[in-house]
Amino acid sequence: MDIIFQSIGTIHTPYIAINTPHQPIADAPGDFWITLNPDYASALRTLDTFNYIYVLYHLDQVTPPLELLTSSPWAPDTEIGLFASRSPQRPNPIGLSIVRVKEIKGNEITISGIDTYNGTPLLDIKPYMHFLDSKEDANNGWFDTLPDKEHTMAHALGLTHEHEHEHEHEHPHQHVNDHDHPHRHSPAHSHEHSHEITHRQSHDHKHPGHLHEHND
Amino acid sequence: MDIIFQSIGTIHTPYIAINTPHQPIADAPGDFWITLNPDYASALRTLDTFNYIYVLYHLDQVTPPLELLTSSPWAPDTEIGLFASRSPQRPNPIGLSIVRVKEIKGNEITISGIDTYNGTPLLDIKPYMHFLDSKEDANNGWFDTLPDKEHTMAHALGLTHEHEHEHEHEHPHQHVNDHDHPHRHSPAHSHEHSHEITHRQSHDHKHPGHLHEHND
Repeated sequence: MDIIFQSIGTIHTPYIAINTPHQPIADAPGDFWITLNPDYASALRTLDTFNYIYVLYHLDQVTPPLELLTSSPWAPDTEIGLFASRSPQRPNPIGLSIVRVKEIKGNEITISGIDTYNGTPLLDIKPYMHFLDSKEDANNGWFDTLPDKEHTMAHALGLTHEHEHEHEHEHPHQHVNDHDHPHRHSPAHSHEHSHEITHRQSHDHKHPGHLHEHND
Repeated sequence: MDIIFQSIGTIHTPYIAINTPHQPIADAPGDFWITLNPDYASALRTLDTFNYIYVLYHLDQVTPPLELLTSSPWAPDTEIGLFASRSPQRPNPIGLSIVRVKEIKGNEITISGIDTYNGTPLLDIKPYMHFLDSKEDANNGWFDTLPDKEHTMAHALGLTHEHEHEHEHEHPHQHVNDHDHPHRHSPAHSHEHSHEITHRQSHDHKHPGHLHEHND
């Protein structure tokens, strides 16, 4: 039986489907905001008391194939089940991201970086409540078995971090946030992903500065 | 434009809509399991490497009214926006719960207590990953302003806990997990909820024992 939902707003991001990161990059350059259907604006009252929210959305630009056994961009050699992955290609393509609330004005919510493309239809917003949702004893499943787990997590989160490369460089270098980790979004698209990494000879761990010029 | 999803399985719980708790009670008595459409069984591979999962489901028995300004069963006097609440009455009635994975056999997943009624249609399962999903700096929003916050959280989570009642009892007593916190599920149903609490003169903090007799 069909389950019928309606879009209740739109998610605005600097991404198109093919350059959308796999996970939310909190400090990603660019503007991220949600425009809620104005009919629902009053339902945002007190949402600004939360620092994090769940955003649920319809991955309407994600197309088949639906692979029941898949792999992760972070572990291309590990075979995992689709439901053990956060792949956007799912029987019901519902995206779920946790983002920071920056500002709420009328029916617009400015948020931290989210891992979906510009124009994504919004399904729901729920408050993220520490006492319900932050499971400090949670593990990372198959991710915990990766040989270079901490480093891979830093990549997944878009964090700048140091590499040790057998003296290829005089100094540890920094990755800036220009990875190209496209969503797998079409049958022609392979499992491979590329890292386009700018190496800097720097000890600076701070994220490269960027301008937020949010034009309403 | 309609967004059309399909149920991919069924959630089995001891609850009917009117006695479903508002939040997952991890150690609730009774059996909780998910039957996935057998066509998708192979997509569960490696899901058992996670200790927690997200379960997304269609709250198909939740009916109007849709109140844009609502209150919480935990804060009946605080007016909050619908999107700042976890009310099941939402424009798109998608439920989201975090539960423990206990066992996976074929297309059946035995889970810890979940806050939905028996027969709920399943929309999706996603792995809960500590490094992505456990936001230790998250707050509890308006919940943090409640005068008896810690106590109310214990109720919400169904935890046994002590009360101090101005010497009404000789000893601190224990709540057993038989609260009746029904989902608001029909127009005739008021905001009020009742606590049916069994007082015991006991210092025992353990959860009352219960049998799990899971009949497949």
